[in-house]
Amino acid sequence: MWISELSGRSGVPIPTIKYYLRERLLDHGESVSATRSHYDERHVARLRLIRALVDVAGMSLERVREVLHHIDDESADLHSALGSAHELLSAEPDSDPSEASMDACSQMIADQGWQVSRQSRHRRALAAALDAMSDAGNPISPQTLRNYARAVDDIAAAELAGIPTGDRDVSATYMVTGTVLAEPVLLTLRRLAHENLSSRRFGHNGTVTPPPDDES
Amino acid sequence: MWISELSGRSGVPIPTIKYYLRERLLDHGESVSATRSHYDERHVARLRLIRALVDVAGMSLERVREVLHHIDDESADLHSALGSAHELLSAEPDSDPSEASMDACSQMIADQGWQVSRQSRHRRALAAALDAMSDAGNPISPQTLRNYARAVDDIAAAELAGIPTGDRDVSATYMVTGTVLAEPVLLTLRRLAHENLSSRRFGHNGTVTPPPDDES
Repeated sequence: MWISELSGRSGVPIPTIKYYLRERLLDHGESVSATRSHYDERHVARLRLIRALVDVAGMSLERVREVLHHIDDESADLHSALGSAHELLSAEPDSDPSEASMDACSQMIADQGWQVSRQSRHRRALAAALDAMSDAGNPISPQTLRNYARAVDDIAAAELAGIPTGDRDVSATYMVTGTVLAEPVLLTLRRLAHENLSSRRFGHNGTVTPPPDDES
Repeated sequence: MWISELSGRSGVPIPTIKYYLRERLLDHGESVSATRSHYDERHVARLRLIRALVDVAGMSLERVREVLHHIDDESADLHSALGSAHELLSAEPDSDPSEASMDACSQMIADQGWQVSRQSRHRRALAAALDAMSDAGNPISPQTLRNYARAVDDIAAAELAGIPTGDRDVSATYMVTGTVLAEPVLLTLRRLAHENLSSRRFGHNGTVTPPPDDES
């Protein structure tokens, strides 16, 4: 396809595509003449991935470049490539998380039987998020954390089952894009669920009623 | 307590507390002398709420002021107050979501039997998030959306059951703080769950293996 169709398919304006080509975030297409190139499905997928990382995950182009570098590193197996790309989604905590929260994470990971690296950045980001809850006077109990982990594990298993296999680049792009783009879906669903429950529980003028036994 | 203890308990530096007092984001304490005031637990809770909204939800102080205004509006019942405060957590989409996504949200809400307002900003934010997935070539099926909604509903029900009742201000603060602060916990848990599943499924050099039957 020509660049105009690539722009239409990906939703990325032509000047932005040209910028990404110059910055080498996007591979050049197949040259047809001095000024025209042909692009294919991989270019569409790559542009969508870049937009998801920039618009939804709020990444700088420098961090996007790192993510793409890991996805493209064919010397690494797909899990390592995915792991490195995926890891960049979680911000490195500003300060070291507390030992208590790191221990709570390790315990939860052991309870779930999860295989995740000891150095995982997600693990440190989770511990930092637990610290923020404690600091705010809303600490999460180990039981709640376990419940969250179980619910999320079911979600993730269903998501991973849908990943197309067979092509390394397609799998990697799909996984990183899916992780990033589904996050706002899950968060807004939870907010809607809270709105629903709040309306059932608090929806009378000024009074706070206990949750009804037959619901919740 | 004096301002120094308030600072220690809330983790907010004294100059920042003074700034919030001047900006009327925080009520003045009980004056003891021309220069000293006494503060109580409500001040601690309010400061933690402000920090959660600024640091975790990334809100401007102007938006924080709106949230606090709704929580403090005693003419509204608790659900309306919470609804208005909570609603500000979701950003208003830049453009109108597609009708197809709005319909998919309505269908999911009807399937779940949720009571949420037709004008809910979370509903529009969810539709916009669905549009972003379609635009990226990863559309969510109605089945997946239903699975997400069910998993999230279980999480939310467990969360709401833990809300302290009896004091309007405490309930509202707890609910908004809890919604905001638990979001990074859920997102990082999902990333960890993906890391685990990816390691089981893709963790061999360069090969992509199908998910084992006895797991996932």
